[in-house]
Amino acid sequence: MEQASRSAGTVRPGGRTARVRAAVLEATQDELVEHGFHGLTMDQVAARAGVGKTTVYRRWGSPAGLVTDLMTELADQSSPHADTGSIESDLRVNALAVCEAVNDGRLGATFQAMIAAATCDRQAADALRAFYLRRIEEWAGAVELAVQRGDLPRGTDAMEVIRAVSAPLYYRLVVTREPVTPEVAERSVQRALAAARAGAFIP
Amino acid sequence: MEQASRSAGTVRPGGRTARVRAAVLEATQDELVEHGFHGLTMDQVAARAGVGKTTVYRRWGSPAGLVTDLMTELADQSSPHADTGSIESDLRVNALAVCEAVNDGRLGATFQAMIAAATCDRQAADALRAFYLRRIEEWAGAVELAVQRGDLPRGTDAMEVIRAVSAPLYYRLVVTREPVTPEVAERSVQRALAAARAGAFIP
Repeated sequence: MEQASRSAGTVRPGGRTARVRAAVLEATQDELVEHGFHGLTMDQVAARAGVGKTTVYRRWGSPAGLVTDLMTELADQSSPHADTGSIESDLRVNALAVCEAVNDGRLGATFQAMIAAATCDRQAADALRAFYLRRIEEWAGAVELAVQRGDLPRGTDAMEVIRAVSAPLYYRLVVTREPVTPEVAERSVQRALAAARAGAFIP
Repeated sequence: MEQASRSAGTVRPGGRTARVRAAVLEATQDELVEHGFHGLTMDQVAARAGVGKTTVYRRWGSPAGLVTDLMTELADQSSPHADTGSIESDLRVNALAVCEAVNDGRLGATFQAMIAAATCDRQAADALRAFYLRRIEEWAGAVELAVQRGDLPRGTDAMEVIRAVSAPLYYRLVVTREPVTPEVAERSVQRALAAARAGAFIP
């Protein structure tokens, strides 16, 4: 969810189809933030987007279809991994972006709503999992470059390093409900790096 | 949530007051698992527990009061920290207990319901935070003993080591929706330990 645009509806230019999709995804995110996944209805999204109900039903099928497409769009909009030449700096960019995203009113609420929905809805869980796997895979590239440079040990599991940077932040956000601050982000980077340098991410 | 009994209602002996509380908390957990926090009603809990509604309203006040007391009870029932003489073994006991708890049908569902509720309800969030802080503080004792033995560096933040062991497990459980296995638990222990030995938990 790093650096995803706050507004799913304001980015992609294109023709009518793209404009309809942008409006529908924007409305989906608004409804998700305000009412949660279980309060998300096709009719309300259609009304809010100013799009015909039949179009929304035909193209997205269900509320799960809407949030799946929203998560795809948020992943599409997310930044590629950093490549500063230093794994410490790259991971810091990642951790601070997660920190900023989860503290962002709209984006943070979107992800909390999806996390809540995923606890009891299979399709919401699938959409959430797909989003994070894409983001983890993207950022694993930074770790792979560090291994190639010889900055981290050969055989380091790159995706696991990225998961390790994010995990303490999300753990505080949704489990222990403690603040997620830039200091927390920095500590997470330092601990993941210390473990990686010690070879603890070699399977 | 480590090693908490699966049944909040079967543990505490005592008089009528204790029996009523046990029945009400058992019913609260059942309802939470089946209907989630937002489907939890005082009347249903009273009916399920076979206890008068007025008693439930008078003693617990609200659904939030019920889950707060349930979380207190689950924390009370949880095991004290391990003390095997080895921090690696102690952390393994902790990580495997978390792994088992989140994979337990009833207990896992209870926590997922609470995590979902906490995303949009302040009192549920407070109950969840209080539960985890108690568990983290309890297990921090194992890390403090390791520091006293000289097995981990002086100044190590004991609570942070415990958070670091749990975080990757919960991250997979509720964020990336990936399986939480004993292998995942073991890797989490090894990485937290590697970082702790490298001094990364010294503030």
